[in-house]
Amino acid sequence: MRKVVIFDSTLRDGAQAKGISFTVEDKIKLVKALDAIGIWYIEAGNPGSNPKDLEFFERIKELKLPNARIIAFGATRRMNIKAEDDENIISLLNAGTKAVAIFGKTWDFHVTDVLKTTLEENLRMIRDTIAFFKERGREVVFDAEHFFDGYSANPEYAMQTLKTAFDAGADTLCLCDTNGGAFPKQVQEVTRKVVKVFKVPIGIHCHNDSGMAVANTIMAVTAGAKQVQGTFTGIGERCGNANLSTIIPNLQLKLGIKCIPHERIKNITATARYVSEIANVVHDERAPYVGANAFAHKGGMHIDAVRKNPVSFEHVSPEEVGNARDILLSEVAGRSTILEKIREIDPTVIKGSPEARMVLNRLKELEHEGFQYEGAEISFELEIQKLLGKYKPVFELQEFKVIVDEPAVENLSSVAMIKIKVGEQSEITAAEGDGPVNALDRALRKALERFFPQIKEMKLKDYKVRVLDSTSATAAKVRVHIESTDGKNSWTTIGVSTDIIHASWQALVDSIEYKLMKDGI
Amino acid sequence: MRKVVIFDSTLRDGAQAKGISFTVEDKIKLVKALDAIGIWYIEAGNPGSNPKDLEFFERIKELKLPNARIIAFGATRRMNIKAEDDENIISLLNAGTKAVAIFGKTWDFHVTDVLKTTLEENLRMIRDTIAFFKERGREVVFDAEHFFDGYSANPEYAMQTLKTAFDAGADTLCLCDTNGGAFPKQVQEVTRKVVKVFKVPIGIHCHNDSGMAVANTIMAVTAGAKQVQGTFTGIGERCGNANLSTIIPNLQLKLGIKCIPHERIKNITATARYVSEIANVVHDERAPYVGANAFAHKGGMHIDAVRKNPVSFEHVSPEEVGNARDILLSEVAGRSTILEKIREIDPTVIKGSPEARMVLNRLKELEHEGFQYEGAEISFELEIQKLLGKYKPVFELQEFKVIVDEPAVENLSSVAMIKIKVGEQSEITAAEGDGPVNALDRALRKALERFFPQIKEMKLKDYKVRVLDSTSATAAKVRVHIESTDGKNSWTTIGVSTDIIHASWQALVDSIEYKLMKDGI
Repeated sequence: MRKVVIFDSTLRDGAQAKGISFTVEDKIKLVKALDAIGIWYIEAGNPGSNPKDLEFFERIKELKLPNARIIAFGATRRMNIKAEDDENIISLLNAGTKAVAIFGKTWDFHVTDVLKTTLEENLRMIRDTIAFFKERGREVVFDAEHFFDGYSANPEYAMQTLKTAFDAGADTLCLCDTNGGAFPKQVQEVTRKVVKVFKVPIGIHCHNDSGMAVANTIMAVTAGAKQVQGTFTGIGERCGNANLSTIIPNLQLKLGIKCIPHERIKNITATARYVSEIANVVHDERAPYVGANAFAHKGGMHIDAVRKNPVSFEHVSPEEVGNARDILLSEVAGRSTILEKIREIDPTVIKGSPEARMVLNRLKELEHEGFQYEGAEISFELEIQKLLGKYKPVFELQEFKVIVDEPAVENLSSVAMIKIKVGEQSEITAAEGDGPVNALDRALRKALERFFPQIKEMKLKDYKVRVLDSTSATAAKVRVHIESTDGKNSWTTIGVSTDIIHASWQALVDSIEYKLMKDGI
Repeated sequence: MRKVVIFDSTLRDGAQAKGISFTVEDKIKLVKALDAIGIWYIEAGNPGSNPKDLEFFERIKELKLPNARIIAFGATRRMNIKAEDDENIISLLNAGTKAVAIFGKTWDFHVTDVLKTTLEENLRMIRDTIAFFKERGREVVFDAEHFFDGYSANPEYAMQTLKTAFDAGADTLCLCDTNGGAFPKQVQEVTRKVVKVFKVPIGIHCHNDSGMAVANTIMAVTAGAKQVQGTFTGIGERCGNANLSTIIPNLQLKLGIKCIPHERIKNITATARYVSEIANVVHDERAPYVGANAFAHKGGMHIDAVRKNPVSFEHVSPEEVGNARDILLSEVAGRSTILEKIREIDPTVIKGSPEARMVLNRLKELEHEGFQYEGAEISFELEIQKLLGKYKPVFELQEFKVIVDEPAVENLSSVAMIKIKVGEQSEITAAEGDGPVNALDRALRKALERFFPQIKEMKLKDYKVRVLDSTSATAAKVRVHIESTDGKNSWTTIGVSTDIIHASWQALVDSIEYKLMKDGI
């Protein structure tokens, strides 16, 4: 079976997209997810241009990745100095990755009019930089920037840049359509020519400015390219990069070209959603394979036909890519996985029974309302317990009231009053906070600590808000994720509401319930 | 110059998309907009399947269209009856359009397993239906449903269906990739074969399930197809249809193939936005040519290069398609970008002056605090005005108080009281809302409307929350983006605070200030 190597640039080229800004923590999470689905190269940042990336490369050294190799990205050395005197080159070296990607100019116009140097010096910059990293034992991917435009303008010079990189020891030569203006036939023809000349793997890196990044990538692969660069949901500068969540199924399911371990193809929908979640962008529901609409049928005739035989209006089976036919339920997992979860809580529930159906239907409804349980398994388990009547609340809310004042006093704008009941005893208390959610969180813990002192061990680690259906503006629905820890374990809970306070409250309560359940209360 | 005929199906196949529902009024508006940009065929509905469409076809008869020809769409006759006895055929005839599109089966499996009839009867259905409309003077486009899958399964039968349509008098034979699973090379090869056989124009109709609808369309055109079907922003069932707002510039600006009058290419961005507006979908800002990000540059090096020569990172000029270059203000943007913005507000500020330095330093501080002005240029401009002492607030906040109650009354959990001052007059009022931000938003507008009635024109379009530094959990800093519109313009403002109410307040105030400034208050 033919193979290609997938090179993911979500963390680097993806971060060039308008509105995207990853924290170091975000990046670590994404690396783990990309590694888990079987991506080979993860281009994780540009240590020379960005101090935040330096911290990331320090932290990633401690992480043991079963599959992936981390790549640090940087430019060829600056003109007229030695590679070792260029502090960006040194930062790139200090990132300490086994592999680096070096981008260099291949379009003569860019060399003379943007870099403002000579064609010869540009070749020396490519050679010196690659040689520098090869001498220090690094694997080097040469990103031939603007290669297709360069080849159109001056094919001889463009090929000379590749030859220079090859002679300096580059392990892969990657052809980049940096401006995204190339056409499929052109990409195919040029790639075919390059593949014939060089004895190292050729890569392809496309942008989507003509809406053809996926097709251009496929054409390059059929012309012999062996490395495919892209970002996991197509995020990237301007119109974005080639979308790996489309390309991987296209290559693997349609052309039989292996990209990732076959059994992980079914994780592609969940991984794409996770990337959107971390990037805090609205997941593109129209996206091929991984969008909620990708297998949604509306026309009556189409629905009938799909019932008779799914192949009538589906180019692949949604299950193959971990998606589902117009139901949100399997965003979490297949039905059998959910049944498994139900049986963990109540082993007497059997497949097809009224209880199983009731739970499945209610979960589907909740997902339609915006609950997304992926990564929030605790709320998911609590919900199943509630549905099966196995849930015993540890406390009862009687009332809360949160007041936000402007102007604020001593930066504490908010105060929350809360009244709860535990068994027959009730407690009323209040707390101030930096914002209404913070005040409510503090008040709730204060009220409960009297009954459950172990709540003091617990703290909130992460709080995320996601606006769903953002066109309703300030009345839009929000989804809140809260990650909590007690030093031993971490867990995530979820809340959904048009009211951010209410959504936060749901997630807070689930989190506390879980802590107490875990401790056997 | 070579030409292709554009066949827009936004009103028909676009209406098959999840969440899309056009009123008759919407459809009339869209027809006018598509006609104005020079679309030749507008497929406007299926009068047989949809009573709303019948009303539309009545109304459209009165409309004089300078360019476009309206198409009514329907299936071949039902099996084993005469065309004139099929009420769908009669509805299609009664729509009274000069041209009709008739779709028929070409994939043997669909005939036997979905329609459940014989291959011969399907050919008769195609022949009778086309003959029926030709006898009544209609122009007929034959939509060969599932043609590429049909051709793969049984090329002989697929070609026979086309021959039957041709012999019955079809004016165009359109090859449809109904399931969206075809690949560019396949589309090119099959189209080339069909073009050689038939003496009528061949059309192409692609879906985007493999992310290659645009490329497949281009490949068909280079193989000789003369009619291009698609929808204006790519909306359509599942992953959508081939996007005409990408295909038209691709063909006309890149390949020199005429689609619409050349001087109207510059209206394509506005038309695409208008279609999104009427369809009530969030405009895809990443869309090639017509998205706000299509010419947005973020990386410092890219920005410098584009300044030197736009062709360095732009495949076409944004002005050609009626779009604009957007240089993002972000940590990676250079100082010269920001100076340019400052000088737009006060041309007397020169590079290196104390004012320029002061503004730059303050902006850097604000960005460190979490303000991210890219995509929020209005807040950025207002901030510069404040720093340069050019800012005159239109109102003064004296106090607000927001109260959130649980249990909520009638789903309105929150109430906001606000007191403001405009000149010497003050106003105190209150409003309820679905969450604290919504209540505060309503109260502020209510208080201001007395002084500035034009605030009624304005509404919030989009509300986004991003948690920064999420490890501080519920006391974490949040960034709020609000997009507002008054029907004519749209603008985005920003707020940052550890308190979501306060961050939302900042963004709300900026938005209202801008609206009033814009209207000359």
